[in-house]
Amino acid sequence: MADGLLSSSLPLYAQVEAVLAASIADGTYPPGSRLPNEESLIERFAVSRTTVRQTVQNLIRRGLVEIRRGKGTFVTQPKITQELTELSGFVEDMQALGRRATARLVDKQVVPASESVARQLALAAGTLVVRIQRVRLADNVPISFDETYLPREIGEKVMENDLEIEPIFSLLEQKYNMPLVEAEYRLEAVSADAVIARALGIAVGSPIFLIERTSYCAGPQPIDYERLYYRGDQVRFVTRLARRSPAGGL
Amino acid sequence: MADGLLSSSLPLYAQVEAVLAASIADGTYPPGSRLPNEESLIERFAVSRTTVRQTVQNLIRRGLVEIRRGKGTFVTQPKITQELTELSGFVEDMQALGRRATARLVDKQVVPASESVARQLALAAGTLVVRIQRVRLADNVPISFDETYLPREIGEKVMENDLEIEPIFSLLEQKYNMPLVEAEYRLEAVSADAVIARALGIAVGSPIFLIERTSYCAGPQPIDYERLYYRGDQVRFVTRLARRSPAGGL
Repeated sequence: MADGLLSSSLPLYAQVEAVLAASIADGTYPPGSRLPNEESLIERFAVSRTTVRQTVQNLIRRGLVEIRRGKGTFVTQPKITQELTELSGFVEDMQALGRRATARLVDKQVVPASESVARQLALAAGTLVVRIQRVRLADNVPISFDETYLPREIGEKVMENDLEIEPIFSLLEQKYNMPLVEAEYRLEAVSADAVIARALGIAVGSPIFLIERTSYCAGPQPIDYERLYYRGDQVRFVTRLARRSPAGGL
Repeated sequence: MADGLLSSSLPLYAQVEAVLAASIADGTYPPGSRLPNEESLIERFAVSRTTVRQTVQNLIRRGLVEIRRGKGTFVTQPKITQELTELSGFVEDMQALGRRATARLVDKQVVPASESVARQLALAAGTLVVRIQRVRLADNVPISFDETYLPREIGEKVMENDLEIEPIFSLLEQKYNMPLVEAEYRLEAVSADAVIARALGIAVGSPIFLIERTSYCAGPQPIDYERLYYRGDQVRFVTRLARRSPAGGL
């Protein structure tokens, strides 16, 4: 990640890790290719097997390589690149990328709104709301764990549908005639806790790109508050921003 | 993070962690307040000291609490919330938030461009470029580790300045008359490697919000490529997006 930064004051495994990560980033080891085996790495870097194993473990943790049982260690496919320029749903995003979107329903129920959920939906804390939890997949790979909170009235209608088939945005807009107009996004990098890790089939502590999204129809009342926990090893988001003014400072 | 998800099939520490995280999120334990001590938590949740310690370690790793030596465990201040709506620099962003921005220069030198750096600056791999590495601080807290890559000609001018004082955007725009027009952003959640962790004074594996940014002046030639490694426990980004079309699917 910080090529050229290698310093003899870094631990050996970190130096080897940086060299291998740079070789993956610059295409020396392209996606889908096999990393040299332990013996080759031990010889090339003149380090111990323990060091090589630590290095490979770190590359796995960073999502750069994966072990295929009995076959070796392979460079992972590049991340799914999603535009962050318009309010769009998961199915729309995956269709735009030519990927097949599916969903696994984890839970749907009426719950009292916590302080933070209530604030996002502009309700009093403790008000009953509908919470829907789903794992979203692209080409059968779990990509995000989504918690959707809806005000009770519309939520109880939405939850009657087959939520593994019907996108919630489609239901709101087409079935219930509530066209979405815009949304506020809050973006954070966090670590997977036990709940998220289990839902996505990843290790506790793995990097998560968390998007909190509050969506509005024409009026001032929020209609949908979501917490989208994206796997950091699977997605990146891209956008393009114009300069504020000709004079400024970095 | 996933309140209400508590299940007896989760390990005890994860259940306690979820309850405490929810209490922090909903303001029961506001920023700056002290978390109940070990004895109280052991009694309240009827769990072992080992479980309580594991829980608190996880909350620290997630950036929700911090230990103040000899004083106890405290809920951290909320994250710095930065707008992601216009191309702006760190000093501008911090000034808009009423925070004092400073920088620590880690390194500046001429280096051959790696494949990925060359691609972003539209140069041939191996072309010499200027790399500047800085730690950016807000009110003396390290917020991000920035790697800036500039084409050699403008880079060698920029690197002659005091880069702990002069923002690079200001130098480009005001001193060298290269007004920025727009930038491409790529956003990812990753884990801190040893280099990043050391620069920011955080643990290896901590969540990092990585922004890669390629900036342009009026022409098609990129002028500045940056890798900004923001501490996940310190920042969030916000934006607002309009709906693509009235009909779509989530």
